[in-house]
Amino acid sequence: MRDFSRSHDALSLNTATVRKQWRLPEIVDACARHGIRTIAPWRDQVADCGLARAGELIRAHGLALSGYCRGGMFPAIDAAARRAALEDNFRAVDEAAALGSPCLVLVVGGLPGALDGAPAHRDLGRARGEVRDGVAALLEYAREAAMPLAIEPLHPMYAADRSCVNTLEQALDLCDAVDPGRGGGVGVAIDVYHVWWDPKLAAQVARAGRDRILAFHVCDWLVRTTDLLLDRGMMGDGVIDIPAIRRWVEGAGYRGACEVEIFSAGNWWQRPGDEVLATCIARFGSCV
Amino acid sequence: MRDFSRSHDALSLNTATVRKQWRLPEIVDACARHGIRTIAPWRDQVADCGLARAGELIRAHGLALSGYCRGGMFPAIDAAARRAALEDNFRAVDEAAALGSPCLVLVVGGLPGALDGAPAHRDLGRARGEVRDGVAALLEYAREAAMPLAIEPLHPMYAADRSCVNTLEQALDLCDAVDPGRGGGVGVAIDVYHVWWDPKLAAQVARAGRDRILAFHVCDWLVRTTDLLLDRGMMGDGVIDIPAIRRWVEGAGYRGACEVEIFSAGNWWQRPGDEVLATCIARFGSCV
Repeated sequence: MRDFSRSHDALSLNTATVRKQWRLPEIVDACARHGIRTIAPWRDQVADCGLARAGELIRAHGLALSGYCRGGMFPAIDAAARRAALEDNFRAVDEAAALGSPCLVLVVGGLPGALDGAPAHRDLGRARGEVRDGVAALLEYAREAAMPLAIEPLHPMYAADRSCVNTLEQALDLCDAVDPGRGGGVGVAIDVYHVWWDPKLAAQVARAGRDRILAFHVCDWLVRTTDLLLDRGMMGDGVIDIPAIRRWVEGAGYRGACEVEIFSAGNWWQRPGDEVLATCIARFGSCV
Repeated sequence: MRDFSRSHDALSLNTATVRKQWRLPEIVDACARHGIRTIAPWRDQVADCGLARAGELIRAHGLALSGYCRGGMFPAIDAAARRAALEDNFRAVDEAAALGSPCLVLVVGGLPGALDGAPAHRDLGRARGEVRDGVAALLEYAREAAMPLAIEPLHPMYAADRSCVNTLEQALDLCDAVDPGRGGGVGVAIDVYHVWWDPKLAAQVARAGRDRILAFHVCDWLVRTTDLLLDRGMMGDGVIDIPAIRRWVEGAGYRGACEVEIFSAGNWWQRPGDEVLATCIARFGSCV
């Protein structure tokens, strides 16, 4: 396993980690200050800054991307809405390509309307079918653009509103369904927050192998989690054995960035951005 | 599938559903008023009332039990603490037998200390090994008492502090590990709240079969869940397709009670107990 104790070269900052403190240009500057060389920006932050300017800033600072957040949200109430969602995913692929991202991360969606508190139905199987069809259609477009799709299985507590793909096994089954010949262009983003609990995790990471693991995200699970979405912990503050999972992931051949992604309304989003980044770097060396 | 629209004979009340309104004797009285003929009491409520008196009340009102809550919490920091946990489980078996319960529900535990906010370690594999050993040891005792053990897989969001058994597949693997010959005496409690998201649910329910399904619990998953533990929904208020799951469970041969178990600090625990029971009965007929 790579030694992270003396260098944070492998650290990537998911820009949501400091989204309440800074806009994208300030985040890029801060990364330069802290010697962070890789980021994973979100579409809304890029749109806020402008795609062209975002690309210029990223290139001017010599930053690489570890991913682009995010495509997905395929299930919808009717064919027109599904087509609109797919078209929006085409634009996400284009943006990811313009920014030089190595992959587009997909949060595939759950029951239509659930994210707004008004689910249109309760048929998770139907949503999963629409996800499969959506990923298959997007894959054709993404292969033309040479943009790999990284399906991110989300914790089962998000099954209703954010993602009906909830285990690594299920995500890999989906990869196999849309890419039976393992021709490439589709794989998974493994975030410890979503998968740490899974008794089949080690076996499924090995199954994924080098060609299917497109991204690796870290944060921590707090034992007194107070909010389902916005109470992620800093690495070392929770119960996830992050080094054990990284060992499996690297054992499968992954050598890419380790992306720090922390949504924390009550704690880290309340602190000065420079303190957050310094803490990320310190914990990257001691707890990842 | 059984028709619940005209009778709530199959309804069992998990007494935690009205634990903030009433103590056990009042709950038993209320069940008699509402024509609820089956309950699943908790150990603390029974202890509060006294085991002998609880048994007398239950028998005097002609109530049956659908389960007894709960044993488990096997992982601990050292051998002495694990032994103490096992001894406490022996007492839970004795109490379940004294009350005439058809099974003892097991919430197996997670990382030692996590429930108190101070996890002793991060090794979920170790905790799972201690659970396997604990269930195996308890099974010997429980078989002597003819008390079936119902392992309840808990939602993955409880992996750290309440249960490191988080899918039905894993629970059934555990049953097979401690009872390879399917000699009986150990099975699962299937609560829709914990398993509804699982893409392998239908297949695993079929695998469980009639002999391994010892209990079936219902409530609902709210799309704006505000608390990880105490914000369960009333059947019909959330996104779980409860009839679909009941169809699978009954298709596997289950004909026992459907136990309503709702922890709801902000809503149902704030309402008059009679209103809660009337609502449970109405929704049992329309949404289960």
